[in-house]
Amino acid sequence: MTDRKKVIIDTDTAGDDTIALLTAMHYFQVEGVMITGGNVQFDQQVENALYTIQVAGKGGSIPVYKGHEKPMLAVGKQQHRTVEDVHGSDGMGGANFPHAVQRPEQEHAVDFLIEKIHAHPGEIHLLAIAPLTNIAMAVQKDPGIIPKIPHLYIMGGTNNSLGNITPSAEYNFWVDPEAARIVLHSGVPITMVGWEMCTRYSVMDDANHEEIERLGTAGAKFFIDINRVVKQFNKEVHRLPGTTHPDTLLMAVAADESIMTRSGMYHVDVETAGELTRGYSLVDINNRLERLRNVRVCEEVNREAFTAMLYEVLGSIVT
Amino acid sequence: MTDRKKVIIDTDTAGDDTIALLTAMHYFQVEGVMITGGNVQFDQQVENALYTIQVAGKGGSIPVYKGHEKPMLAVGKQQHRTVEDVHGSDGMGGANFPHAVQRPEQEHAVDFLIEKIHAHPGEIHLLAIAPLTNIAMAVQKDPGIIPKIPHLYIMGGTNNSLGNITPSAEYNFWVDPEAARIVLHSGVPITMVGWEMCTRYSVMDDANHEEIERLGTAGAKFFIDINRVVKQFNKEVHRLPGTTHPDTLLMAVAADESIMTRSGMYHVDVETAGELTRGYSLVDINNRLERLRNVRVCEEVNREAFTAMLYEVLGSIVT
Amino acid sequence: MTDRKKVIIDTDTAGDDTIALLTAMHYFQVEGVMITGGNVQFDQQVENALYTIQVAGKGGSIPVYKGHEKPMLAVGKQQHRTVEDVHGSDGMGGANFPHAVQRPEQEHAVDFLIEKIHAHPGEIHLLAIAPLTNIAMAVQKDPGIIPKIPHLYIMGGTNNSLGNITPSAEYNFWVDPEAARIVLHSGVPITMVGWEMCTRYSVMDDANHEEIERLGTAGAKFFIDINRVVKQFNKEVHRLPGTTHPDTLLMAVAADESIMTRSGMYHVDVETAGELTRGYSLVDINNRLERLRNVRVCEEVNREAFTAMLYEVLGSIVT
Amino acid sequence: MTDRKKVIIDTDTAGDDTIALLTAMHYFQVEGVMITGGNVQFDQQVENALYTIQVAGKGGSIPVYKGHEKPMLAVGKQQHRTVEDVHGSDGMGGANFPHAVQRPEQEHAVDFLIEKIHAHPGEIHLLAIAPLTNIAMAVQKDPGIIPKIPHLYIMGGTNNSLGNITPSAEYNFWVDPEAARIVLHSGVPITMVGWEMCTRYSVMDDANHEEIERLGTAGAKFFIDINRVVKQFNKEVHRLPGTTHPDTLLMAVAADESIMTRSGMYHVDVETAGELTRGYSLVDINNRLERLRNVRVCEEVNREAFTAMLYEVLGSIVT
Repeated sequence: MTDRKKVIIDTDTAGDDTIALLTAMHYFQVEGVMITGGNVQFDQQVENALYTIQVAGKGGSIPVYKGHEKPMLAVGKQQHRTVEDVHGSDGMGGANFPHAVQRPEQEHAVDFLIEKIHAHPGEIHLLAIAPLTNIAMAVQKDPGIIPKIPHLYIMGGTNNSLGNITPSAEYNFWVDPEAARIVLHSGVPITMVGWEMCTRYSVMDDANHEEIERLGTAGAKFFIDINRVVKQFNKEVHRLPGTTHPDTLLMAVAADESIMTRSGMYHVDVETAGELTRGYSLVDINNRLERLRNVRVCEEVNREAFTAMLYEVLGSIVT
Repeated sequence: MTDRKKVIIDTDTAGDDTIALLTAMHYFQVEGVMITGGNVQFDQQVENALYTIQVAGKGGSIPVYKGHEKPMLAVGKQQHRTVEDVHGSDGMGGANFPHAVQRPEQEHAVDFLIEKIHAHPGEIHLLAIAPLTNIAMAVQKDPGIIPKIPHLYIMGGTNNSLGNITPSAEYNFWVDPEAARIVLHSGVPITMVGWEMCTRYSVMDDANHEEIERLGTAGAKFFIDINRVVKQFNKEVHRLPGTTHPDTLLMAVAADESIMTRSGMYHVDVETAGELTRGYSLVDINNRLERLRNVRVCEEVNREAFTAMLYEVLGSIVT
Repeated sequence: MTDRKKVIIDTDTAGDDTIALLTAMHYFQVEGVMITGGNVQFDQQVENALYTIQVAGKGGSIPVYKGHEKPMLAVGKQQHRTVEDVHGSDGMGGANFPHAVQRPEQEHAVDFLIEKIHAHPGEIHLLAIAPLTNIAMAVQKDPGIIPKIPHLYIMGGTNNSLGNITPSAEYNFWVDPEAARIVLHSGVPITMVGWEMCTRYSVMDDANHEEIERLGTAGAKFFIDINRVVKQFNKEVHRLPGTTHPDTLLMAVAADESIMTRSGMYHVDVETAGELTRGYSLVDINNRLERLRNVRVCEEVNREAFTAMLYEVLGSIVT
Repeated sequence: MTDRKKVIIDTDTAGDDTIALLTAMHYFQVEGVMITGGNVQFDQQVENALYTIQVAGKGGSIPVYKGHEKPMLAVGKQQHRTVEDVHGSDGMGGANFPHAVQRPEQEHAVDFLIEKIHAHPGEIHLLAIAPLTNIAMAVQKDPGIIPKIPHLYIMGGTNNSLGNITPSAEYNFWVDPEAARIVLHSGVPITMVGWEMCTRYSVMDDANHEEIERLGTAGAKFFIDINRVVKQFNKEVHRLPGTTHPDTLLMAVAADESIMTRSGMYHVDVETAGELTRGYSLVDINNRLERLRNVRVCEEVNREAFTAMLYEVLGSIVT
């Protein structure tokens, strides 16, 4: 236990964010959870994170911090949009769980992040499965933290491929493309797992769901409950044969990089100005632009290994 | 012969444009060839088209019209860029062929196009394998031609995937995104074959080149000459194991739609305003934007059938 | 008469365009009138031009050519907007004049313009009082005309000051900013008279209107009829105490440059990409950008001299 | 003294910022000074503020807080640009004053601001004479402060007129247009004094400088020292016959609104996306856009009254 990596998680907790939290708590020493505006109503996201910590049997031991409720430039045309159609009105597949006992901290997430990084320089890995508002704001407020962050794992963007919220953009980057741009250009070492990876390697179909159900654990039950709405949404909108687990995939890659069977260092940037392409992530695979290779981009995952990790996590939550 | 479809071709003749011209002359009744600013120096493109017509043994029988030498908005940041690195300084793989006997017409391509369409309403199919400047300008000058064009086949754009001139954009759309946008929104029935189709189904590798060489015809020899530079370029830049034939693929699809084994009607649009995404083509596969489905987009090709068509064309040119 | 300057006028004839036409016919040898999409319905504009020529007693002697009905990029968000609220539904202050005897030519305005310039190199001055679509398209279609145009006078833009159609933009530049940009960067020698000049030096108040009425001529009566709607509009919207005569001011400056008592050569450009500033004209008075000084910008006018010219024109039309 | 208004000042202290600080200390109870990245090197700005406080004889009694060193989106094309050419390398006209005794606080400016506003709801007026980064970030981090701010006075933007850093933009808005936009749309009651007001009403010419010199006070001497570089810059670049005092004008208006002899409530917005117009401030004088009237815009100032206030301030600093 003592040598588990210290991490701080940034999440807009709804749907797969919860399974990702369970995964992170299984593999890492989670120093804190930060909430960013994203998937559903902000306060609901806070409750979802607290409840998930309780599901993992860690209630009270992992602090949850409220961060930015809206993207950096939430004015004019750039109003924030939540996606209850994907995750259910509560972001939990309509399960309407009771409130957890644990309450959120008073300190702002950005201040918590800055302090923790300074307190443990080079030790705190960041796991981002939400719009990058909080992390961008932290980097902006105190650039001194940059050299003290050993690595940032980001679920966001796509590898020049079909988006999910629009044809050109993935949701996390689309919600706050300016924040994404700031973070990608910050100088922090980054690994990015994009939406395309998720659609290729993380889809859990009916057979997977049955296997998970057969685990019979509280974790398995939670997984099934959480995923009711997204399963239907994916079938209708994305024409995908199951539930998607982008955030869990990110955690799995961070926990065991060997499941990422191919990756490359590329220049990655985010469009903020386009009429049709706000939030588009450019991954310069062939180095056409000859710019700084700032991000390690995941290009292939060992799906069997990932699935095994997911089963292990869900099987381990027994209460 | 009498019932061959009448077509007008718009081309920035260099590299694969020439093979596409041979293919079109094989399958269609070509009423005229229009030149648009694109791949290499404009006058060189005109010569390349004239020479190719001569190679096909049609010298003097198919008129060539000079159109717009530059994209619509070639001011400020949007200067035109040719790509001699892809096609050789002459756009013909460095073959430096002699001038053809035939000379270009005096009339402007746009005026030729407008007249021809009005003279043969509903009969002239358009085959566009260049930036869409000429066609946009014709539609702008005389919107009355729109209902008289039965179909426009466009090689351009990508299906939300990696571009060639930049990570986000395919060359033809990138050169003149405003023209592409005008044409895509014009109301003309359109089939689009994008760069991704080309990289998946049109790459001719060493084995193909050997087979073509063995044909022993003038057409085969021309193919080998033309493709010297692009073969090397594709290996180094696009990491593709052979020559690419986007324009020929477009002609083959137009000549025999049955080789297009999958396609869909989608909303397609082109980004003109982005900082990183100028020329990006959005294909709304999952109808996320709920806008007009204006383009039939090619999604799969029978590669064997395409290869057979290419061999047939090259084998038939015997002089 | 024989040494009067040859001019071609580009107009979206409505309101003050008509008085400008009268002024031009008074001072210049008008070789032709081109119509561009702008103020009101296109065909109405054609009729307005024809009727105005008849009012001047020149019916049948000055050809009128139909040009582009819409701006260059009239797709997506950039739909064209007419301004019947300014000029009345007929663009003639609601006068509803009968059709003129003369009919428009068959040839397209752009082709007429190109031919005429080549036929009289260095002799044809252009007077533009409409969106610059036609002139941009001519320059695009045949850049060879550029060195043969001695001067282009443009009513359009503002000198970094309040616009009329939006707070940031003047109508002519706003309708087709891409065309304006092409023309301003074309290399043609240009004098620009912007909206600010119009509000400072061309407003005709009640006293002026009474003086004009007292002239008692057909020209005077026409002026009064034409200006009924705009007078009210200016009072309510622009808080100006009379009618505005931007187009007539442009003609007067072109006819007698000595009434332009101050001007400067500045870099002038047009914003095409802004969210709030599409059509904004930048005039780099203090050379902050250190770019090419491409336009002579009118900065001050002798109002008395201008008024005298207007009265002379209106007084001279006696039929 | 007890009923003087409480204010917090946000400044990028260089040149006229210093005189504005003196003015504010004369008329208000200054609760704190925040430094934002702007005119010159950040740490130099901090020293300039501390030194100015000392000049006013208030050393040690008014805390100075360091805020954001760079604009919100200082990535890619939007790199920050300082203007030592305007204010001298030290931002103090090259005076190279010694360091003040007082040192800056440890707390971040944004956190200080948030706490102070909550501690004195409805009492803290904000005086912003710098890019709006700090204030935007405070509003973003804690929107709960918005209803507790009675008024924000902003020196920034222009009234649809010539800018200073570019032809289209005033420096403070241009440095961080996103921040300006966030603040203008925040709902806080705002009075804006733009660059045009400054050029019309705040220019101090040679006669003024002589009068100030004759005051013979330490304040007068400081004024003369500070303004050496800008005087020359204004003559050469802006063709203005003296020194400009935008920040002092803002303070004077805030201290005695009766010197603002004309103003209007208008919709004001800032362009962030333009190619030529980044930072342009739109003031919808004629309500063309029919949007929320969010800002009271200064349109006329009693110059004599302003000059008298300036003299009074400079005359009162006697040490």
